[in-house]
Amino acid sequence: MPTIVVEVMPKPELLDPAGKAVAGALHRLGHDHVTDVRIGKRFELSVDTVDDELLKSIEKVAADMLSNSVIETVLSVEVLDESPAGETH
Amino acid sequence: MPTIVVEVMPKPELLDPAGKAVAGALHRLGHDHVTDVRIGKRFELSVDTVDDELLKSIEKVAADMLSNSVIETVLSVEVLDESPAGETH
Repeated sequence: MPTIVVEVMPKPELLDPAGKAVAGALHRLGHDHVTDVRIGKRFELSVDTVDDELLKSIEKVAADMLSNSVIETVLSVEVLDESPAGETH
Repeated sequence: MPTIVVEVMPKPELLDPAGKAVAGALHRLGHDHVTDVRIGKRFELSVDTVDDELLKSIEKVAADMLSNSVIETVLSVEVLDESPAGETH
């Protein structure tokens, strides 16, 4: 069954408290080369079949339901390549 | 400044209540072609420079801090291609 991956991130201009907390913890543990951390969401939608029309409707779902357009940006809506040889991603 | 993207998903065998809720809502809105939804996290770590050693340490951070190995899987740890021509992703 095909899988569509939707990636959503907080808008760059927005403060990301959770990301700041992780960055702070990394610094305390000596990972000073990490200057900033931002945390978003990754959705995997299993679908029956994939065609352009379906992909269009998922893009709309991503914009309307899976993200809050005021504070988040939909980075990508892509069909996951599940070729048997490679890893799932 | 280079960005490293870490993707974390709940383990497949695990129930994903939030994902089930989204799938249910999509069905109520007529998106019947979506059979399942799983929700994970996407981290963007800004770093000073990128080399193999740093990438190794970020892989360790991903396993130890950015995910809970009991219930989650680190799907990928990749340097974001920020070639000026293309999109950031």
